Amino acid sequence: MTNFDAAIQAMLDNKTKPLGALGQLEDLAAQICRVQQSLSPELKQPTILVFAADHGLSAEGVSAFPSEVTAQMVLNFVAGGAAINVFCQQHNIALQIIDAGVAQPFDADLPIIHCKAGQGTQSALRGAAMTTAQLTHCRTNARALVTQAKANGSNVMGFGEMGIGNTSSAALIMHYVTGRPLTECVGRGTGLDDAGWHRKLDVLERVVTQHGPMSDPESVLQSVGGFEIAMISYAMEAAYEQDMLVLVDGFIATAAALLCVKRQPASRAAMVFCHQSDESGHRHMLDYLDARPLLQLHLRLGEGTGCALAYPLLQAAVAFTRDMASFASAGVSNRDTSPTSEP
Amino acid sequence: MTNFDAAIQAMLDNKTKPLGALGQLEDLAAQICRVQQSLSPELKQPTILVFAADHGLSAEGVSAFPSEVTAQMVLNFVAGGAAINVFCQQHNIALQIIDAGVAQPFDADLPIIHCKAGQGTQSALRGAAMTTAQLTHCRTNARALVTQAKANGSNVMGFGEMGIGNTSSAALIMHYVTGRPLTECVGRGTGLDDAGWHRKLDVLERVVTQHGPMSDPESVLQSVGGFEIAMISYAMEAAYEQDMLVLVDGFIATAAALLCVKRQPASRAAMVFCHQSDESGHRHMLDYLDARPLLQLHLRLGEGTGCALAYPLLQAAVAFTRDMASFASAGVSNRDTSPTSEP
Repeated sequence: MTNFDAAIQAMLDNKTKPLGALGQLEDLAAQICRVQQSLSPELKQPTILVFAADHGLSAEGVSAFPSEVTAQMVLNFVAGGAAINVFCQQHNIALQIIDAGVAQPFDADLPIIHCKAGQGTQSALRGAAMTTAQLTHCRTNARALVTQAKANGSNVMGFGEMGIGNTSSAALIMHYVTGRPLTECVGRGTGLDDAGWHRKLDVLERVVTQHGPMSDPESVLQSVGGFEIAMISYAMEAAYEQDMLVLVDGFIATAAALLCVKRQPASRAAMVFCHQSDESGHRHMLDYLDARPLLQLHLRLGEGTGCALAYPLLQAAVAFTRDMASFASAGVSNRDTSPTSEP
Repeated sequence: MTNFDAAIQAMLDNKTKPLGALGQLEDLAAQICRVQQSLSPELKQPTILVFAADHGLSAEGVSAFPSEVTAQMVLNFVAGGAAINVFCQQHNIALQIIDAGVAQPFDADLPIIHCKAGQGTQSALRGAAMTTAQLTHCRTNARALVTQAKANGSNVMGFGEMGIGNTSSAALIMHYVTGRPLTECVGRGTGLDDAGWHRKLDVLERVVTQHGPMSDPESVLQSVGGFEIAMISYAMEAAYEQDMLVLVDGFIATAAALLCVKRQPASRAAMVFCHQSDESGHRHMLDYLDARPLLQLHLRLGEGTGCALAYPLLQAAVAFTRDMASFASAGVSNRDTSPTSEP
């Protein structure tokens, strides 16, 4: 334990509560202290970026919803009608919508960030999902967005996504990074029935057969990734580099986190795993990352909704480190100092 | 399914998200709708009552902390330095502290609600913990507090406690109501070591031997209860009767809920189980009540902290029912209506 870790622990242990009685909230407080290198942590200008993109694989029947829904949901985000709008509003979280590569064109004056890497990825059944230039486009733009948020005063960012078909891309990434068999990586997405699940598995098995083994995270992203997943992965890395807290949402965002940690293992320390999704592979991803999620509410929506819903727990962690009394200041007997405490 | 339940389900299913994608938050929204008999639920004047009392059993060495800590923590609550103060402040929850029976006297002008049923309970090793008159005192005062909160406009109440030794009382109540063996009911409270746990178990086994079998909830309360647990239990019942939502905290508050449900089974429908405590018996209590808690953060602090930390999830449940767009209003294709959706 470093001196700084010991100082964090002493600060937590002096609060007027039994040792460790705030459980995971104490671990979260300690993590925030470490990321900010401060015993008086603060959360500033929380920001969620929602990246939207389409997937060539969606034409292969891997989703219960048609790909037009991606663009429709972008318009719903802009109109304020989606779940992520409601939860960001509730917690005063700034929300930005990014067109990372939706198939449909948007009016230039639509109040989103326009940085299409393409009109959806190519089907990974027919070659690489994206070109090297498209991957570079995703990296450059994602890093710029994080730098801009940092310049605006943010020190905590969450990342969400919208993209019909993107649980397929995330399942493939999970397979390549964790080595787990596809059957454990493939879930029901937005609600496939048994027949739909088998069709999805069949498509993804053919993708894996075609592309063969891969381990380099850039190759995986380029071969089977999505534009939104690429942008999230690079944005997470940039946020870590800029000493920000990284809020990780569900299955798709965690696939992006897997790639980020594979590129830059130290980035794991900046990540707060906000919830465990009902998408079946998510628990395995979290185990692989040795992550204990804050919420387990059987969510399977994406959009960054898990980040927004968990955010008050980060606020609570910061608030108790700042505002709770110590045993000494409150005149409360600690078990270690009281003459009547048990041996 | 009643017509009203069907109307709730239709409302939830028409929101722009895959069916059920908000998981447990959808169940919570439906519960709030049912309690309020409204498809446009609202949370008004959330209030947490924290009941403090001392326990005769604490003199038998069942706790890691001395009983003076109960009074010291009441003063800490009044000064705003405890965890529950911080979390109530964070979420704009009104907080009231009630002296249900702390051993030490308080100044009459201390800004708490003074309604001592006694200077701590009697040790249940030496007879009934409280008299019939004391139990009636707890019932009358608890009901009056809830009626007052309702008159002040509250429709959602949480109940917390502070009382050195009260996990012993809660474990005994759990044993009598659920029939589980004491070894499954007795936990480490605020942090007993192995020797302390065995001593606590030994004391509680002797209590059970002395009192013999009991099933009537009033007899259980009078014999082995605490003043704070009695008040919480009656307050929960009164809140249910007045169509309020009842926020249930951890191990001790859930013991009170067990007694409330035993007296009035219909009250279960008003209860929101806010978290699963690290106190080992709590999971069994929740199973007995068929309850799925909102948070599982390994908290073991009491004070109503789990209620306060979970409250934003209730707000989120209400906010999404109110503010999310429907498929029709947002122009988003639903899987059931789209020509390209899977069969």
